[in-house]
Amino acid sequence: MAACRCRITFPIRCTSNSNNSHDPNKQNMHKIKIKGTCSRPHKVDSLSQTAGVAITSVASVAENLSHTKEQITRQNIPTKKQYIDAHRQGLIIEEGVGYRQKVVIRSYEVGPDKTATLESILYLLQETALNHVWLSGLLSNGFGATHGMVRNNLIWVVSKLQVQVDQYPIWGEVVEIDTWVGASGKNGMKRDWLIRSQATGHVFARATSTWVMMNEKTRRLSKMPEEVRAELSPWFIEKQAIKEEVPVKIPKLDEKARYAITNLKPKRSDLDMNQHVNNVKYVRWMLETIPDQFLESHQLSGIILEYRRECASSDIVQSLCDPDEDGINNSCLKQANDIPQLNGFSLASEIMERNGLLGSVDKVPLRYTHLLLTKGETQNEEIVRGKTTWKKKQKTMPFQPSKN
Amino acid sequence: MAACRCRITFPIRCTSNSNNSHDPNKQNMHKIKIKGTCSRPHKVDSLSQTAGVAITSVASVAENLSHTKEQITRQNIPTKKQYIDAHRQGLIIEEGVGYRQKVVIRSYEVGPDKTATLESILYLLQETALNHVWLSGLLSNGFGATHGMVRNNLIWVVSKLQVQVDQYPIWGEVVEIDTWVGASGKNGMKRDWLIRSQATGHVFARATSTWVMMNEKTRRLSKMPEEVRAELSPWFIEKQAIKEEVPVKIPKLDEKARYAITNLKPKRSDLDMNQHVNNVKYVRWMLETIPDQFLESHQLSGIILEYRRECASSDIVQSLCDPDEDGINNSCLKQANDIPQLNGFSLASEIMERNGLLGSVDKVPLRYTHLLLTKGETQNEEIVRGKTTWKKKQKTMPFQPSKN
Repeated sequence: MAACRCRITFPIRCTSNSNNSHDPNKQNMHKIKIKGTCSRPHKVDSLSQTAGVAITSVASVAENLSHTKEQITRQNIPTKKQYIDAHRQGLIIEEGVGYRQKVVIRSYEVGPDKTATLESILYLLQETALNHVWLSGLLSNGFGATHGMVRNNLIWVVSKLQVQVDQYPIWGEVVEIDTWVGASGKNGMKRDWLIRSQATGHVFARATSTWVMMNEKTRRLSKMPEEVRAELSPWFIEKQAIKEEVPVKIPKLDEKARYAITNLKPKRSDLDMNQHVNNVKYVRWMLETIPDQFLESHQLSGIILEYRRECASSDIVQSLCDPDEDGINNSCLKQANDIPQLNGFSLASEIMERNGLLGSVDKVPLRYTHLLLTKGETQNEEIVRGKTTWKKKQKTMPFQPSKN
Repeated sequence: MAACRCRITFPIRCTSNSNNSHDPNKQNMHKIKIKGTCSRPHKVDSLSQTAGVAITSVASVAENLSHTKEQITRQNIPTKKQYIDAHRQGLIIEEGVGYRQKVVIRSYEVGPDKTATLESILYLLQETALNHVWLSGLLSNGFGATHGMVRNNLIWVVSKLQVQVDQYPIWGEVVEIDTWVGASGKNGMKRDWLIRSQATGHVFARATSTWVMMNEKTRRLSKMPEEVRAELSPWFIEKQAIKEEVPVKIPKLDEKARYAITNLKPKRSDLDMNQHVNNVKYVRWMLETIPDQFLESHQLSGIILEYRRECASSDIVQSLCDPDEDGINNSCLKQANDIPQLNGFSLASEIMERNGLLGSVDKVPLRYTHLLLTKGETQNEEIVRGKTTWKKKQKTMPFQPSKN
């Protein structure tokens, strides 16, 4: 039975897996926790409404991913499990099932304050997850799907992603990224990550995600076939990057949200191999609603994303954002409530300044709720809900003020 | 004497250099060719007009780049020339003066057609250039400047960049990037690159660039001090990645340009360590003017960029684009001339389709001229001129058509 009927997707359509029964390190399947599943029968209509687009895109993906002989030689995807990947500086750890990759933070992966951006970190999570599958020897002719999944027309879709950042790595810093997978319910999978300083061992960031399988033709969520379970389960371990807390419920924002950016249109450069908007772009759209002045003095320490629907290149997107009231003290909240609904972060930034809301950084909200919506034919449809948590920066990096 | 008075900048403010007189591989300074210099005294006014902004930004950069002890430990920039960098998979080649780095094309560096994007290639050029300086042991407390340059308050600014792409690497492909420097005139420097398939040795791309020095306080171009020449000249070699042809003159476009996107505003995520818009963003803005239908069936095979002025976070930018007439046959040209000036590539795409201009791909222009402008107080000011050359893709990758 499908756990979740909402159309959700994610560029990281990957897992790590092996059906190599001779692997001495393979582990038995562990206790499975049911996580990250939901039932949304009311979303069926919106599913069929967009099914045409989805199927078109699947056809394109299939075409994209048809490997020519030349491509096979050039990519050189392993057909058997490998323990070391010298090119990617990756290796198998955790008794044969986890993956570790060394990464140097590049000059263009940092922002104006010379620390890695959240976007770069999300991209590195994607990259290491895919390289884990790459090394497993089971990466098929697709974007992270196993051979068994391809035989069953299945792809991975992400339902939830959570990242906690304690400290951001800086330009030129060497980090190690560990990633591993585990069971999530009967039919899902978890993937976790740890990002660590190679020099000090300090854990910069932790991340966890939940995945389910979708039939790429019917666009319906699917059970995990036994054939695929046999590939995946030897790789499952029960280890959590983020200690489980009470699940955060992310409310659905509406037009009363304090900040909104409308009419966001994906560009060619926002599309990934699946011809869909890469989820990192979602995060960029979310963060653009937050006033510049706040971003000058604060850094993101946590983000939770709940995916509802994929975003196609033709979608027109609206990004809503609302500060959480329990993060503001009363006097400040009163002022905040006097602010009219704003459209665009530049204006927001000016008004925030005029009201002196940012005079004391202790009084500003430290949590925001987010929603990305796309215009459906009859109603707006949710792409992703988000919750961000922030902390004060140790050193303020001024964003150059507008002269216009 | 300063060769060029226009305000130009570039995030790759780097060179490779060494004053290690014991280096057995160091070479004598070679014959210097005068290249890429120009005299634009008429730009002095526009310089002083924006000097306030520029100086503010320099102060920010200085603050950014002030290293704490912790940063020094975490970055671990070499203080002596190293021959191998295991973390970056880089090594010194070319008899001790060139640099080679192995790079795997990552999942997020490719576009919908699974080949590396031009943006990714430009970022990799930036990255390998900086890593060359990193390994040289002379990288100072800045974005690629040498110790001697920092003592003289000098930074690098790029005046020209040219890239030729024969074939784009694909997702997961291992490439080797070679880079080296040479003299350009008395006071400038050239930096070249070659990107090669590690598996086959095939040269995917070639690039060359020209650099001059600017005093970061006065914002005026500067002679190369003897102290800096002593650092740099041992690294200069006379070798060209791109065979010199007759220099291409890029005409200045005006409001009659066929395609225009107006009101482009840099976002926080477009800014680099210098608090300025990264030049890769310039290229994205340029290419967004080109109709989707053309991009579906063609790939960029060459780009030349001439930098005139840096773009700050407060600038509002206009991207103009015009097809070169000598690349279109007459009947097609006539149709093309009937198209009114367009604002935005979506509209452009529709009109191109209606006129059937793309019915025969042999008839479409294969060269475009570009211009990015920013609104000055009295007149628009040029940021960068560009020329792109295109060839037909071997396999067409459809861009998902709009359903709106």
